[in-house]
Amino acid sequence: MSPLPLPIRCDRVEAELAELATFSDPPFPGVTRVLFSAPDLAARRWLQGRFRAAGLEVRADAVGNLFARWLGEDPGPLAVATGSHIDAVPHSGRYDGTVGVLGALEAFRALRESGFRPKRSLEIVVFSAEEPTRFGVSCLGSRALAGRIGPEELAALRDEAGRSFAELREAAGLGHLPLAELAPPRYAAFVELHIEQGPLLEREGAAIGAVEAIAAPAAYRIRWLGEAGHAGTLLLADRRDALAGAAEGILAVERAARESGSADTVATVGQIAVSPGALNSVAGFASLGLDLRDINPERRERVASAIREAFVEIAGRRRLELSWERIYEDPPAACDPGLVAQILASADRLGLRARRMISRAYHDSLFLARLCPTAMIFIPCRAGKSHCPEEHASPAAIEAGVRVLADCLRALAG
Amino acid sequence: MSPLPLPIRCDRVEAELAELATFSDPPFPGVTRVLFSAPDLAARRWLQGRFRAAGLEVRADAVGNLFARWLGEDPGPLAVATGSHIDAVPHSGRYDGTVGVLGALEAFRALRESGFRPKRSLEIVVFSAEEPTRFGVSCLGSRALAGRIGPEELAALRDEAGRSFAELREAAGLGHLPLAELAPPRYAAFVELHIEQGPLLEREGAAIGAVEAIAAPAAYRIRWLGEAGHAGTLLLADRRDALAGAAEGILAVERAARESGSADTVATVGQIAVSPGALNSVAGFASLGLDLRDINPERRERVASAIREAFVEIAGRRRLELSWERIYEDPPAACDPGLVAQILASADRLGLRARRMISRAYHDSLFLARLCPTAMIFIPCRAGKSHCPEEHASPAAIEAGVRVLADCLRALAG
Repeated sequence: MSPLPLPIRCDRVEAELAELATFSDPPFPGVTRVLFSAPDLAARRWLQGRFRAAGLEVRADAVGNLFARWLGEDPGPLAVATGSHIDAVPHSGRYDGTVGVLGALEAFRALRESGFRPKRSLEIVVFSAEEPTRFGVSCLGSRALAGRIGPEELAALRDEAGRSFAELREAAGLGHLPLAELAPPRYAAFVELHIEQGPLLEREGAAIGAVEAIAAPAAYRIRWLGEAGHAGTLLLADRRDALAGAAEGILAVERAARESGSADTVATVGQIAVSPGALNSVAGFASLGLDLRDINPERRERVASAIREAFVEIAGRRRLELSWERIYEDPPAACDPGLVAQILASADRLGLRARRMISRAYHDSLFLARLCPTAMIFIPCRAGKSHCPEEHASPAAIEAGVRVLADCLRALAG
Repeated sequence: MSPLPLPIRCDRVEAELAELATFSDPPFPGVTRVLFSAPDLAARRWLQGRFRAAGLEVRADAVGNLFARWLGEDPGPLAVATGSHIDAVPHSGRYDGTVGVLGALEAFRALRESGFRPKRSLEIVVFSAEEPTRFGVSCLGSRALAGRIGPEELAALRDEAGRSFAELREAAGLGHLPLAELAPPRYAAFVELHIEQGPLLEREGAAIGAVEAIAAPAAYRIRWLGEAGHAGTLLLADRRDALAGAAEGILAVERAARESGSADTVATVGQIAVSPGALNSVAGFASLGLDLRDINPERRERVASAIREAFVEIAGRRRLELSWERIYEDPPAACDPGLVAQILASADRLGLRARRMISRAYHDSLFLARLCPTAMIFIPCRAGKSHCPEEHASPAAIEAGVRVLADCLRALAG
């Protein structure tokens, strides 16, 4: 089978990516779009307009997921789905997630313009809060659909300002949808287009990554309790300095990851808070956010244990109290071999160099894989950079990804 | 000379300290009263009411210093002054500074009730922003009076929210007073009553400390610039993690202070900020606030140099950029020997055990000592704790301090 020449217009995707990037909290040109913030709500409204203009039927669910459906001619019970997310961590780029949403929209438009009429319904899903910025939990939307977080737990999540998910959801205009009625969607397949967020494809000159497995992420909140005091009068020997303990902890995290035996282990402390937080006060309290990932869950557990042991030793020696809270510990996901083969075959037909690979980053696909056959299409991004303003995917890279996605969707829904 | 039995009412001071503590941002029962915040402005209004009720003449100056004067019968050009500050670092106690303000008010009331009529005028000064919480600079009020910060520099200071001192001063209703017209006050003497904020007096069972010298404080802001990235895909070997570098820096600070050769050296990192500050992002930026004190300025400089060298080594090894900003480096102050002798004599007359000592903490007296003969009266506080909600001075300790202060003021103004 030779593909129809699809009228994919990359300039349209580029313009939409640029426009979507303007829905952001300052400072610009970085993108900051946190769940249910004013820019997030404005971006959702804008996106729904684009979906409707493309003839898609739009609905939202109780977690804030958006669905845009192209009704099939003989739909049956199972749709074919694609999509990603549009929320963005503070000061990040314009491609993470958004390429999978606006790329899917362009694939739908090109397929329709080519005369294609799907048999099965085709659906774009925009997952709510893939990033953990607001509540410290990743993939709220897909996690809830997969039943990995319950309605009560979800409603009770609180952000740093103390506002609950339920309260923010209400303010976002979704309060009329009962959280308890969230039902898992029924999909024949889910394929997510995404930038790699790593350097592999660019380094090897490949246009397409067919993702076979998604690394297992875990996140923890570690609190160090010492004693606050005056920076002038509390002598060193008498101190129980929570920040100094936490600093030792940060270095222990780095060491434990380096000594895991595999370069695939990554551990990161990217969040820290101290109290009282004054220039002239010894910190009585420090809290760290720890992100730990591996493709091998046993190795990840070994590293987590090594970190916990190091923290206990530091806390004991420094007379600090320690609390270790698990935010999440998600199991890795394997992609569907048939879909992976489909992606490789589509790339091959389109003359694009492709390779099998794993995803080190966290994606909604991790949870969709629990519901239906799932796979991911990766495209290269410059120098592998992501979650920073320098994040960049070239128009040619995006076009290649959209072509492969459209080809897969045509095969799956045709 | 035997002292008159002054009618000092410690219950009145206790009630006023408790009332002043209610002017605070949450969480209670700790006290948080930051320059020109709503609680600070309300506390200032309340305090002016107390001063007026005691028959004192009240005025404010362009920095927000408050002055409450008891006019002398034959005043001459030089008044005798006492006082301290009422601002409080986040989550601190109710005694730091406030004892020197409300204790002075009680001393004035008791002197007046005893029939004493001062020859020289007596003045209570409430210094603006002794704590560096808002602008990162200690002793704004006394520093400005001593000409150690100029009007332009003062007006241009900005807090973390980007609001300037000039703007906040305007909002506080002081905008009509020209900063450039701040003139050094003309005092015959300044005596400050303060809690020790250290454990020495309590440990030795002494009621009064006569402060001979005030330790020299220095403060720096150190910024670490690396590269932000995705916590899953940016492998350890490729990272330029600003927070990991800062963590090494915090431990280097601790080590340099420990190795100074004297237990009098204290170095503290009590403030840290990172960006982007997301759970799943490698930190591209980290900023540390460093507070360094010593009674020996040469040793302090040696320790500062050792810390700078360690930071440069860490930054080089981790491929981070470093900036080192001096916030202030103040010289130490010696107290006036005559006033120190006066304090010891007053304590002796009152049957209170006293000792000479140094102040490790930063006080407005450091700057007043540049303007006039200055000394400090220290009273013990429980377990030496300060800048924390557990800060406590007993009613008996406060009464002893107020008695010594009143006795000194009587001798100086009588």
